[in-house]
This record gives sequence, C-alpha cells and structure tokens, in this order.
Amino acid sequence: MAAHELRVGLLGLGQVGGGAARLLASNEAGVAAKLGRPVKVVRALVRDLARAREAALSGITLTARPDEVVASDDIDVVVEVMGGIEPARTLVLEALSQGKTIVTANKALLSVHGPEIFARAADAGVDVLFEGAVCGGVPIVRTLREALAADRIESLRGIVNGTTNFILSEMAAGGDYALALARAQSLGFAEADPSFDVSGKDAAQKLVLLASLGFGASVSLDDVPCEGIEQIEPTDIAYARELGFAIKLIARASESPAGLELSVRPSLVPLGGTLATVGGPFNAVEVRSEALGATLLVGQGAGSMPTGAAVAGDVLEAARNLASRAAGRVKGFGWAFASSRLGIAPALQRRGPWFLRFTAADEPGVLAQIAGALGARGISIASVIQRERSPSAGAVPVVVVTHDAVEQRVREAVAWLDQLSLARGKTRLLPIEK
Amino acid sequence: MAAHELRVGLLGLGQVGGGAARLLASNEAGVAAKLGRPVKVVRALVRDLARAREAALSGITLTARPDEVVASDDIDVVVEVMGGIEPARTLVLEALSQGKTIVTANKALLSVHGPEIFARAADAGVDVLFEGAVCGGVPIVRTLREALAADRIESLRGIVNGTTNFILSEMAAGGDYALALARAQSLGFAEADPSFDVSGKDAAQKLVLLASLGFGASVSLDDVPCEGIEQIEPTDIAYARELGFAIKLIARASESPAGLELSVRPSLVPLGGTLATVGGPFNAVEVRSEALGATLLVGQGAGSMPTGAAVAGDVLEAARNLASRAAGRVKGFGWAFASSRLGIAPALQRRGPWFLRFTAADEPGVLAQIAGALGARGISIASVIQRERSPSAGAVPVVVVTHDAVEQRVREAVAWLDQLSLARGKTRLLPIEK
Repeated sequence: MAAHELRVGLLGLGQVGGGAARLLASNEAGVAAKLGRPVKVVRALVRDLARAREAALSGITLTARPDEVVASDDIDVVVEVMGGIEPARTLVLEALSQGKTIVTANKALLSVHGPEIFARAADAGVDVLFEGAVCGGVPIVRTLREALAADRIESLRGIVNGTTNFILSEMAAGGDYALALARAQSLGFAEADPSFDVSGKDAAQKLVLLASLGFGASVSLDDVPCEGIEQIEPTDIAYARELGFAIKLIARASESPAGLELSVRPSLVPLGGTLATVGGPFNAVEVRSEALGATLLVGQGAGSMPTGAAVAGDVLEAARNLASRAAGRVKGFGWAFASSRLGIAPALQRRGPWFLRFTAADEPGVLAQIAGALGARGISIASVIQRERSPSAGAVPVVVVTHDAVEQRVREAVAWLDQLSLARGKTRLLPIEK
Repeated sequence: MAAHELRVGLLGLGQVGGGAARLLASNEAGVAAKLGRPVKVVRALVRDLARAREAALSGITLTARPDEVVASDDIDVVVEVMGGIEPARTLVLEALSQGKTIVTANKALLSVHGPEIFARAADAGVDVLFEGAVCGGVPIVRTLREALAADRIESLRGIVNGTTNFILSEMAAGGDYALALARAQSLGFAEADPSFDVSGKDAAQKLVLLASLGFGASVSLDDVPCEGIEQIEPTDIAYARELGFAIKLIARASESPAGLELSVRPSLVPLGGTLATVGGPFNAVEVRSEALGATLLVGQGAGSMPTGAAVAGDVLEAARNLASRAAGRVKGFGWAFASSRLGIAPALQRRGPWFLRFTAADEPGVLAQIAGALGARGISIASVIQRERSPSAGAVPVVVVTHDAVEQRVREAVAWLDQLSLARGKTRLLPIEK
C-alpha cells in the first residue's frame, strides 16, 4: 500500500473530537515521522454548520450529512465521538459495513451494543478501537488487550469515575455530599444533572467493557450490581479513616469459584495503599494476574485532552494496522471469543470483610443485639467503635468491622437488626477492599 | 499466511526464559484462541544440556548450538533471555539477519548496542520487542510506544529498580543500610554483589531505554549522571519524613529549554503522593505529557514471572505482527528516528528545590554561615531544622530545604561550606521532586 495520507472522518466535533483533532494537527510532523505518512482529519459531522469553530480546526470540512463521513471513499478511519446510543449505533454499523476502521470513545454504545458492533467488525475484517471509552488518560484497554494477553487475569478493580472520586476526595477534606457536589459542578467535574455519575452507572458501563476484555466473558449492564455515593455521609468517611481506610467508589470484577463477581459500590480501601492516594478527578485501575501480580495504572479519567489523546492514539494504531494490512490483528473483545470460560456469579456472594455503621437507640444492650445477630449468622467481628452516649441525641452510631463473611449473610443480619425497635436509621453496609 | 503454529526459540532458559515458557505452556489453549494459532516453544539454547529441568519445560528441545536457534528455518521468533552483552549481541544480530523477530529482556544489551540492533532490524524489516527489558510488570514500553504516540511527552520519572526500593522501604521502617541490604539479600531481592543495583547503574540502563523511546532522543549511558543509595542514612530518611517526604531512588528524564535532563539519584518525594506509596520490590513510572497530564504505571519490577509475562506478551505481539505481515508496524525506538528533536542538557542544570543535611561543629554561628553561603549564591531557604545541641556529640545536623535553585549553584555553596573548619562531614544533597 502506498504511503498516502490517512484520512480521518469525525462523527462529532465537541470536547473529545475537538481535542483529538487539535492534538493530531499540533503533532502533525511528529506523527507523520512516526508513521511514515501524514494523518489528516478531513471531514466532521456536526449538528450546527454555522457555529463558529476555533482556528485550529479550520482545515476540517464540516458536514451535516452522515454519509459523507461513514460512506465516503476518501475516509479511511471513522472516529465516533458523538456519544449516546442513536444515531451513533446506526452510523458505526454503516461505517463498518463500508469497511471503515472505527475509533470510538462511546462507552454507552459499546456497553449496550458491543456484541453487535464487534460481530459486524469481524465480518468486515476491520478494527474497532476504544481506548478513549474507558478512563481516557489510563491506557487500560491496550494493557488488557496486549500487555496481559499471555497472562491470566484474576481480578480488576478501579476508581473509574472522576466525578465521584472528586466528590469523595472533597468530602474527605471536610464538607458534606451536597457541598462537595456543588463544588464539583462549579469546577466542571460534575454535570448539572449528576445522576449518571453519582449513581455509579457510568462506572458500571466502564466495568462492562473492562470485564469483557479482561475475562473474555460476555458481560452486560444487568450483570453489574451498582450502588452510588449519594448516601455516603461525612461520618462514614470519618469512621473509615479512624479504622485506617478511605472510601472510594470501586468498580470490581473478580474471578470466584462461582463465576465472575461484578460490582460498583462505595468501598473502604486501606489508607496506606495506592488506591487511597488517587485523588480528585483521577482514575486508577488495578489488575491482578497470575504472572504479573498487581499492576496499577493511574491517570486523568476524562476531559477533552486526556480522552482526545486516547482517541488520537487509537487513530495512530488504526493507521499502522491499515498500512500493514493488519486490521483485525488483535482480537478486540471478550464478545469476540466463541467460548467464554466464565459465567456470572450469583449476586450477594462476595466474601470479604465489611464495614457496618448502625444507628441505634441510646439504650443498654444495643451492642449485645448487634453482636448476637452477627454471631448467629456465623459472622465474626474484627473491631467495634462505640462512643460514649451523647447527652442530647437519642441515637448513637455503632461501627463494626467484620472478618471475612458472605454478603448474603451480612445483609440478613442487617435486615433483622434494622427492623428492631432499637434501630434509629438504615444501617450503612460497605465492603472493605484488601 | 496459513495459521501454522508460531515457533519460538529461546536463547537461555533461566528465570525469565523459564517463566515465559511456563506461561505460554500453561495458557496454551487461551493463547491459541486469541491468536487463531498455537504458540510453541520448540528449542532452547542452554549452557548445560545435562542439567535437570522441570516437567513443564520438557517439551522443549535443548541445544548447545546457537545456530539451531538463530539460524534455523523452523524458528519464527527468537527470545533472547541470556542477559549480558556477549554472546547475546552477536546472536541477536545474526538472528535479525536471518529475518527472525526478536523478543528480548536484555536492558544492558539495548542500552549499549541499541542503535546497532535497531538499525539491523530496520534493514531486515523485522521487529525487536523489549517490554521485559524495563520494569517487567509495568507495561511502560507499550504505553510509550503506542498509547502516547500521538502525544508529546514532557517528563518521565520513576522507581525502576526493585532492589533499591526494597532497601529504602526497609530503612524507612527502621534499620540502617547494611541491615536492610542483608534482608534484601536473604529474601532474594538483592544479589550477593549488589553493586549494580545499589549504585543506580541498573536504573540508568532502564532510563536510557525509556528516554530514547519517550523523547525520540539518542541517549547513551554516559548521558545519565548516576548516584546510588549507598550513602543514605536513617537520619536522612527521618528528616525527610519530618518534612513530609519519603526518599526513593528516582530515575528521571525531562525536557528543559537546555535539552533533555537525565538523572538517577535518591530523591525526596511527597509522602501524600503516589510514588511514596510504591513500596518493596515494586516499580512505578510516571509519564507527564501535554495532553494526558500525569499517567502512572505501577507493577512488580522484576522476577521470573513478571518479566516472563512481559516476554510472553511480546511473543504474542510478534505472533500477531507476523500473522498479519505487520512486522515493523510500530517504529520501535528513539534511535530509529532520523531527527531527534532534543539534545542532552548540560550537567548540573537541574532547577528545583533541594534537601541539604549539613553536619557541623556544635558551636555558635553555624546556621549563619550556612544561610550566608546559600544567600550569597541567590539560593533562598524554605525551611530549616536545627535541634538543640546534643550533650555528647561534637557535631550537629542542620537540615535545610531550599526554594527552586540551580544545582550548580547549590553545589558551589555546599563545596564552600564543606571545606570550612566548622564542617564535621560531607553534606548530603538530594533533589526534591514536586
């Protein structure tokens, strides 16, 4: 193949698309030297043709007609950065049918329609690259797909949502949830409607991609029990710290005898460990594998430039694969494997230590009731914090850390205790990461 | 190309070679599924044919004749895991001339003869892959080469030697250098002769590879000023901690107006930061780039399985590239670029804050002398620790942290102070990482 320029078409020219285009333009000479041919963004599908664009993007022809990107002969690689399910799904499938390589940063699309899209790509013999779809500044997709390809992954866990991590970091520095959320919004780290992030749904979409890739398993969003950070109170963070832990929203996938255990939930992580030091809008993913042990990757999670850089890196990979006719070189995804070796484990089977914060009437015998309810279900207590009675309040917190126990049993104990007359609120139950 | 099995020949079957071979054998079915063809280690060059090998390696034919690996028609990929310069260099060059893809974990070889080897590979149109040569369990080579390909790297710094990191971690927990070294040796984290590690030379070799790759610069070992950890005392670690820092052996390459600044030296890193949490035999590399900001990768640095897994991952990449005729797909190395944009900065030009521990006579006026010598050279003091006089010792430590200052000036001040009659020992001078 002659070293003609690689022609890129964008579906969308917002934050991420603009970031990728700027980066490819500003490093044009370096990229051409590395690849042996230039990369040029030639056309972009936009909603509003009349809107003013910055000068750096002036070389890009704008169009309102999707087929001028997905079906044009002069486009080699289609970069989908419009987000959302439709029309992204239809356009990506059409582009694949036209033999275009796809680069996408759309986790929602892949986490829902991944199987369909990767099947189409396999039929067409072209690549779908998606480093930008999960933790922009963290090269986790490439690492799972290539670096760990010869290894067997045992678990992966991470802080994969920058909004919630920023809010929890703010709360750890003092302040309640509402205040921390407002600050995140004022700094642009949270949307006006933050529910997609704070509910854990964004993290769950990313976990679907990571788990599919890491375990070669067929994972869907319904397989991921998901709990957000909306209920976390400063008192939880304070007790956790007293016990030597920080609270982070942890997305986790791990192999157990019962299958693949998946969850997104606020969790306690040791203060001395690396995950606890990942603050603000940063993301981190830790992979444990048979041969490598623990590998941790930390970087900026989102934003125009980190995600744009991940997208631009994928465009370069696409260029290399096309130049050497190596499309389909790396099997992209768990869904592409005929036989996934792992089923999904039943819910509530996680076995590990737990943090429980009871809110109980300020009367004698409370600790005995709690200890009794746990003990009756075979759950042993590692430590307890119970303060002196407060003179005014009618309720006292009792914090319990358990030894390893199965979630189902712990929940039974909590449900039983929470319906007793001594209960003054719903018990907070959080897993402790080792 | 038919999907025949990929045939691998090993040069060496020690810790790393054995680890890679075991891993490829134990994950044989998974690897074959991912690649669409099996990978088989068919032959290994060993010194002692008679030595007993474990059962997992029994399928490998042993030979004492190098040409049966490097020049045999039935070998596709040659894995060089013998270490050292010769005969590794000669055998790798011969294998390249025979059109074999090379996978190597030999940082000594590449840091000295990289230019020659990559030139030969370019002539032959084959790949040289070396993820195992730098920080086995950290996918840093792949990240620099691919994930960050569209970005511009500003600096990279890391903890790249597990032996020294283990020793410093032990010293931080209490104990002097000799004790920590003995413990590292007893646990297999340090060699009987530890000088290659503790002097920083091992880290310098790795930095040559990382800097060449990250900056596209032509870097040689002579360009890396290198200081080991042998002189670090428990008192340095204690004062650093009091000031909010840990001491780590940091390998650093960063772009400055004067060119590429390179160094390997014990440095202070903030206790609250992630690098300080990297303990024991772990490695970490932090890359700062224009678009991504900071990206950190942490993993096991060395050992049979981490390095073996990196080698096995490269074998799989070689298999993919050969299957799709994409050898040479990724330009491997800084040396391969015709025009490197960066020269090497002159020595002693680092500008930043410094930690100085003076040992001075226990007499009045010492602090005035120190402050005067620094002030006269335009170096301003950020903080000072001077304790009460100790009743017995004739010498007192004075610890100074400076604001940003150029190393040359700081060294001038130290040299002047150390020759005064009040000096009772050589001043410890360590950079502080931000």
